[in-house]
Amino acid sequence: MHQRPPFTLITLGTGAALPARGRYPTAQLVQVSGGCYLVDCGEGTQERLRAIGFNFQRISDIFISHLHGDHFLGLMGLISSMHLMGRQQPLTIHGPKELQEIIGVQLRASATYLRYPLHMRVTTPVNGTLLMEDEHVVVTALELQHRIPCTGFVFRERPGPLLLRPDRVSSIPKFRRNAVKMGEDLRLGDSEPIPNAELTLPPLPARAYAYCSDTAYAPSLIPYLKGVDLLYHEATFTTAMAARAKETMHSTAEQAAMIARDAGVGRLLLGHFSSRYKHAEVLLEEARPVFLNTELSYEGGVFHIG
Amino acid sequence: MHQRPPFTLITLGTGAALPARGRYPTAQLVQVSGGCYLVDCGEGTQERLRAIGFNFQRISDIFISHLHGDHFLGLMGLISSMHLMGRQQPLTIHGPKELQEIIGVQLRASATYLRYPLHMRVTTPVNGTLLMEDEHVVVTALELQHRIPCTGFVFRERPGPLLLRPDRVSSIPKFRRNAVKMGEDLRLGDSEPIPNAELTLPPLPARAYAYCSDTAYAPSLIPYLKGVDLLYHEATFTTAMAARAKETMHSTAEQAAMIARDAGVGRLLLGHFSSRYKHAEVLLEEARPVFLNTELSYEGGVFHIG
Repeated sequence: MHQRPPFTLITLGTGAALPARGRYPTAQLVQVSGGCYLVDCGEGTQERLRAIGFNFQRISDIFISHLHGDHFLGLMGLISSMHLMGRQQPLTIHGPKELQEIIGVQLRASATYLRYPLHMRVTTPVNGTLLMEDEHVVVTALELQHRIPCTGFVFRERPGPLLLRPDRVSSIPKFRRNAVKMGEDLRLGDSEPIPNAELTLPPLPARAYAYCSDTAYAPSLIPYLKGVDLLYHEATFTTAMAARAKETMHSTAEQAAMIARDAGVGRLLLGHFSSRYKHAEVLLEEARPVFLNTELSYEGGVFHIG
Repeated sequence: MHQRPPFTLITLGTGAALPARGRYPTAQLVQVSGGCYLVDCGEGTQERLRAIGFNFQRISDIFISHLHGDHFLGLMGLISSMHLMGRQQPLTIHGPKELQEIIGVQLRASATYLRYPLHMRVTTPVNGTLLMEDEHVVVTALELQHRIPCTGFVFRERPGPLLLRPDRVSSIPKFRRNAVKMGEDLRLGDSEPIPNAELTLPPLPARAYAYCSDTAYAPSLIPYLKGVDLLYHEATFTTAMAARAKETMHSTAEQAAMIARDAGVGRLLLGHFSSRYKHAEVLLEEARPVFLNTELSYEGGVFHIG
C-alpha cells in the first residue's frame, strides 16, 4: 500500500446568514500534507479554531468566497489575534477586491501595524482560474451564482511521486528508490541505465476537494467538478422552498445532489442550512434519493478526502 | 417606599484584546426603565445576547468607545441580523467618525439595503459632552486616555417625579396626585391653590452608571464620575505589570480602585482582564485594599445600579 499524506476538511460552521440553533456561520479548515488553508471566516471563527485546539498560526492562506457577513465577519478578529500572538510569517488573503478596503480601513482606524506581512490577492470568479499554488496544493476558482460576486474553490493536491512497480521494487536499491519515484532512470555501476518507465507506474490520481457556497443551482459548474473526491455544496433550503431558493440565489438539497450526481463526484457534503430547519436531516433526506453518497456537515466535523 | 424603575447592567464579555480563558470581548447591555442600550460590541456579541435570551431588537442605541477590534467587531453581524430578522425601528450608533466608513463599505460590498433607518452619530471624547438623551436617560462623554481616541460613557437616568410629602399625602385626592408629582399646585374647588412646594419633596437622586474602558490611569475623569452609583473601570493588569499598563495605555486594578475612591463612587466593577490572568481574583485582591466596594464583572453578570 502507498501511504498518502493526509487531506482533510474540518467544517467549523454550518449555518446560513442568520446564526441560530447552535450553528455557527461558515468557516472551513482544509489541510493537505503540511499545508493549512481557511475557507471563509464567519464571525467567531477564531473562537471555533480555539475550541478544536487548532493553532491558527499554521494557516498560510485564507480564501473568502464573497462578502456576505456570514462568510467573512470573523476575518478582522483573526487577523488581529494572529498579530497579538506574535505572528511573523506572511498571511495571504484571497477574496473580492472590496476586501482590501474593508481590512485597510479597520487597520487604520485601530492604528494597528501588523508585525507580519499581509498579502491581498483579488479572486476572479471565473471557472478554472488559477488562484494559488504552493508545494502542497493548487487552488482554482469556481464561478458561483449568487446575488453578489461569489467564488468557489477547488483544492487539488499536487500529484504525488511515481509508484514503484511491485514486480521491480526489489531490484532497486533502497537508497535509489526516492530518485526513481521522482522520475530518474536507475544507474547502477557501469551497466546500462534502466529507463524510469520500466520501473514505475503513474502516480495515484490527485485528490480534490471542491467548495460551493453560496450559489443558486448552477449546472455550469459541472465540468469543473469532474473527478472531485469530496464536494461541499450549500443546501440552504428544502424543495418546498425552491422558489425562495431561486429568489435568494441559494440551492435546495435536491439541487446540490443533482450537481453531485451529474459531476460524478465521490461524495457530497451539505451545509449552510437555513435557521428555519431545526434538524438538518430533512435536507439529507431530500438529497439522498438523487445522490446516495451524501452527508451532513456539522460543527467540528472532520472529513477525509479521497 | 418609592418603587424605582429598574436600572441594570449586564456584562457580556470581560476579556481584553486577545480572547482566551472562556472570556469574551467587551459588550455590555444597559437597561433603564424601558430603554435598552448596548455599550461596545466585540466579536460574537449577537451570540452572547442570544445566549442570555435577550431580544436584541429592543436596543435603540449602540455606543462604541473606540475602534480596537475587541470593542466593535461584532457590530456588523448584529446590524445584519437585526435586518434579517425584520427590524423596522431605527437604530442609532454612536462612535468614532471612522465607524461610518467601516460600516458603509461593508454594507455596500454585501449589497445590503437595511430595512430600518441606521443613524450614525459621531462621538466627541470630551468630558461632559452630551451624546444622547431620550425619555429614560441622558448619556454624556468621558475622555478616556488610550492609544487611539476613546470615549467613555455616563448613563444618568432622567430625574424621577417629585415625591409627595408623607405628612400631606392623605390630603391630596388620588386623582390629583400624579399632577402634583409633576409639579402642579393643588387646586380643589374654589379654595386657594396649595403651592406645590408645600406638598412635595425633591425627587430621589438620579442614578448613574459610568463606563471607562479602555483607558490609562486618568485622574482627569474624577470630577465627571462624582456621584456615580456604579463605575465600570478596566483593570487589564496587576500592579506588577504597571509599566506594561502605562505603555499600552491600560490601567492596573489598583489604579481603577484609586479612581473609584477619589471620585467617591458607590461601587466599582472591574473588567477587561488580560488573558495572562487565568483567575481575575488576583485583580480583585489588588483593588479592594484601595476601594473595598469592588467586584469582578463576569460573562452574563447582572448588576443593579443604585
